[in-house]
Amino acid sequence: MTEFKADPAFEAGSVFAVDWPLCQVRLQDDARFPWLILLPRVDGAVELDDLTAEQRAALMEEMVRAGERVRALGQAAGRPVDKLNTAALGNVTRQLHLHVVGRRRDDGLWPDPIWGRPGAVPLSADDKAALLRAIREA
Amino acid sequence: MTEFKADPAFEAGSVFAVDWPLCQVRLQDDARFPWLILLPRVDGAVELDDLTAEQRAALMEEMVRAGERVRALGQAAGRPVDKLNTAALGNVTRQLHLHVVGRRRDDGLWPDPIWGRPGAVPLSADDKAALLRAIREA
Repeated sequence: MTEFKADPAFEAGSVFAVDWPLCQVRLQDDARFPWLILLPRVDGAVELDDLTAEQRAALMEEMVRAGERVRALGQAAGRPVDKLNTAALGNVTRQLHLHVVGRRRDDGLWPDPIWGRPGAVPLSADDKAALLRAIREA
Repeated sequence: MTEFKADPAFEAGSVFAVDWPLCQVRLQDDARFPWLILLPRVDGAVELDDLTAEQRAALMEEMVRAGERVRALGQAAGRPVDKLNTAALGNVTRQLHLHVVGRRRDDGLWPDPIWGRPGAVPLSADDKAALLRAIREA
């Protein structure tokens, strides 16, 4: 049994939050959006069909759970989410990962997708700690 | 029982291909990428959690099946897919839909996401007919 390792590229822009049954959950370090990343802890997985059907069903349920967390974070910040954006892209970092992002009509990039655009606003240490606590305790 | 209706916005850029158990499958009218759209035939659904857990599991399996089709279309065109991009966005058209797009390093937009960018290249009538046949017969 090998220990699951997140690609170092994820360390650059996000921080470990919690392990769920299938996925490592990470908080994207960007104050503009409530934004979680799910990494299925399956070595070598790149595409959805690198998971078993059982793992995929678990992933879908963790995507929904991540969406609930993202909505709750937006609500707590007084910025309720208008639409969830959920995506498995992987053009830059191939390790299988799902983005779950809370979008608002006034978020500055709406309605465009957020990936591949500059402008990330790092979280303050206090905000990061509070968000991680909220994700872990939910 | 009401008949499922795709939002008219989908008629503008894509064409009906086939009905799978959960989703209406549409072919995006863009010669740059093999690109399918899945619309779960569930009235009023906007977010993944507007589906039941059973419907979500079915959707995940249809996402994988769409990815297989997209890869096969790329292969048949002599342009094998480097990475699938799968996303539920819905910032422009809210009706729940999943994009499944085959990306290549030489596709002109790589590694950026394709949504919200100009440059669609409509399919010829012959190519459209051949692609629809391939999707339906697979």
